[in-house]
Amino acid sequence: MTASPLRIGIAGLGTVGAGTLKVLRAHADLLALRAGRELKPVAVSARARGKNRGVSLDGLRWCDDPLQLAADPEIDVVAELIGGSDGIARGLCELALRNGKHVVTANKALLAHHGAALARAAETAGRALAFEAAVAGGIPIIKALREGLAANRITQLYGILNGTCNYILTQMRTEGREFSAVLAEAQKLGYAEADPSFDVDGIDAGHKLAILAASAFGGEVDFGAVSLEGIRHVTLADIRFAEELGYRIKLLGIARRTELGIEQRVHPCMVPLAAPIASVDGVYNAVVVEGDSVGTTVFEGRGAGEGPTASAVVADLLDIARGHKIPAFGVPAARLAKLPRAPLAKRKGPCYVRLMVVDRPGIFAAVAASLRDHQISMESVLQRGRAPDAVVPVVMTLHEATEAALQQALAEIARHDGIVEPPRMIRIETFA
Amino acid sequence: MTASPLRIGIAGLGTVGAGTLKVLRAHADLLALRAGRELKPVAVSARARGKNRGVSLDGLRWCDDPLQLAADPEIDVVAELIGGSDGIARGLCELALRNGKHVVTANKALLAHHGAALARAAETAGRALAFEAAVAGGIPIIKALREGLAANRITQLYGILNGTCNYILTQMRTEGREFSAVLAEAQKLGYAEADPSFDVDGIDAGHKLAILAASAFGGEVDFGAVSLEGIRHVTLADIRFAEELGYRIKLLGIARRTELGIEQRVHPCMVPLAAPIASVDGVYNAVVVEGDSVGTTVFEGRGAGEGPTASAVVADLLDIARGHKIPAFGVPAARLAKLPRAPLAKRKGPCYVRLMVVDRPGIFAAVAASLRDHQISMESVLQRGRAPDAVVPVVMTLHEATEAALQQALAEIARHDGIVEPPRMIRIETFA
Repeated sequence: MTASPLRIGIAGLGTVGAGTLKVLRAHADLLALRAGRELKPVAVSARARGKNRGVSLDGLRWCDDPLQLAADPEIDVVAELIGGSDGIARGLCELALRNGKHVVTANKALLAHHGAALARAAETAGRALAFEAAVAGGIPIIKALREGLAANRITQLYGILNGTCNYILTQMRTEGREFSAVLAEAQKLGYAEADPSFDVDGIDAGHKLAILAASAFGGEVDFGAVSLEGIRHVTLADIRFAEELGYRIKLLGIARRTELGIEQRVHPCMVPLAAPIASVDGVYNAVVVEGDSVGTTVFEGRGAGEGPTASAVVADLLDIARGHKIPAFGVPAARLAKLPRAPLAKRKGPCYVRLMVVDRPGIFAAVAASLRDHQISMESVLQRGRAPDAVVPVVMTLHEATEAALQQALAEIARHDGIVEPPRMIRIETFA
Repeated sequence: MTASPLRIGIAGLGTVGAGTLKVLRAHADLLALRAGRELKPVAVSARARGKNRGVSLDGLRWCDDPLQLAADPEIDVVAELIGGSDGIARGLCELALRNGKHVVTANKALLAHHGAALARAAETAGRALAFEAAVAGGIPIIKALREGLAANRITQLYGILNGTCNYILTQMRTEGREFSAVLAEAQKLGYAEADPSFDVDGIDAGHKLAILAASAFGGEVDFGAVSLEGIRHVTLADIRFAEELGYRIKLLGIARRTELGIEQRVHPCMVPLAAPIASVDGVYNAVVVEGDSVGTTVFEGRGAGEGPTASAVVADLLDIARGHKIPAFGVPAARLAKLPRAPLAKRKGPCYVRLMVVDRPGIFAAVAASLRDHQISMESVLQRGRAPDAVVPVVMTLHEATEAALQQALAEIARHDGIVEPPRMIRIETFA
């Protein structure tokens, strides 16, 4: 080992930071062999010094202020594992790059909001901005997009990007429980945050999707272009009807090249039971990438947690130690396109609709008339059981229609007598 | 674009070579943007000059002898897409490296037999030896092992590595036809070679497994360590029984770290229907990698064909254009370990056995006694239908036993009266 060590400063010693330190320690020899030089943690920063993190901090400089890491001339790369889209995490990354340090981060919110600016800062500094850990845990999907599949024009990608939602939907299906009960339990088990909005409303998946889309299409990260819809409205009844119809409900992030631009959306989907993504359950993530040469590829693994995330952070550090220089989003930052936004209203596809209706004759005739008036044709209608004058679910699957027509038809249907809740629509995606 | 172009010589203009040229042409701008320099095919070599390959050779130097590419001072990288474990392909790669050129190859047979020597030659020359296209088509699995998952100690990997076998097994199951009929049809359709031995006897999968194992464990490629068994003996009855028992039959390559060394084997397996790999059908390949930090990851895609293979070749060219230098098998060639071979005889696991027996009382008692004598316990026995004094299949699943004990018991059982064919054993893998 003659080459100089890569000197690493770690900011944030939560699950990911401590996990990263553990991997760097446990596999120091293996990493040095693979990189041709030592990957050497030299300094750390976190809020509380004394806390037991399951890993020794011996021999590491302690910094009360993470910005000290960005200023330290004895540090080559800063691993930003603090989190948050602004504030200290952002300031740290910006300062580190300005001071000529490489930056590795697991921070999807930061990249979703400031990815393009940070990529430009990295390019100006001639340093790496690496973020494998920001999307889909240990699955090397960013590397696949920037390198392994980079000979392709990517046509679409989609995936299960939030483990909390996938866990909740899986539990609802397998345990036969409603959303709120499963969420409460997930919170108790530590799988969901006290404020679950970030996960269950699709924001976290949206951050990741925006990063994937930028990496796949060579564009500026454009979180504002992602239409977001979470899983709060998915009921056990929907899940049961889906299975009966041959589908499974998954929260997907979808980024697709269309004639009108790039579609980016996160919402619950019904996917065919036979689709590879249908059987990705629990805390697993999966990303499907379609390229013009390679066809369909699938990447699957644990989407979060100490081990998988640390695996990704250290892989990025290894790339930097090996001297690899890849533009943050696969193309020079100065050449990142402004990806044209394809309006969701123009999306065309089939869907599932659940109505809560008072069970009496004539109501469905009005629904059917509204659909006809908007040129939408029904594929199937299901009403299970009878309960005269009580409220029952009626579900329909509708043939391909534009989103705009659907929304208009559903708004109209919502106003009919006997329709007691806003109609719930779940898009059907067959990825054909 | 100020950097000098990467000048590429392509040896072999079959499906893969022509496909590579097409991608380099079709995506010249995209690739230049991603690499920061032009990826420029400058010369080609193939047997017949005039043949229509669906891509123009205009502007390319033609070499009757591929070795000219290795000698050409105007070429930076040779893409060896000829094939074959020795002969011209090997000579070309050796000469190209000796002359200071990078080598990209799709040649699994060459790497399986001479991978370590070629890696050392590349290291001596200070040039890249890249072979993403040699394993699992367009799936960036070599990159995942050498880079994306390189922070892990890999504990095992396994996969569906031969599309022909997977196609045949899938067709047998879905069409209800026997091996020989499906093989004949696959040959007619061009999915299988006239001499199918390379595919159906597991040799091709073995080549790929040896390459994956070397990349995962940082060892010399050791094809001789791979125990090989193909799919010729798998019958439709086995496939049906497997489904009834909750399994699916797949030809898998498995490389596993054990206390006794590295196990490397290719053989038909029964895998649980719920395993992700069970639903990978037809010409798709899939590789499952387990690492100590990342847990279980799955990579899936088309395992062969013009597009996927070209995607992998061009990804390697892009890495070289970007100046990446990664040791061929992830660690310096001089440090490649001789992987200790774990003897198959010591493998412990459950299995399925099919006996063809004359249907009369008492035969099964003798079988049971033989199993007992070798300390093997039965989990289940199935005989469907009766046909007194005719030959019927009887299948058993056996609890975990060592391979040595199993082979002895089966050899003994084969000698019993009323057993009319050698017992057929299919190992059950649950990957738990």
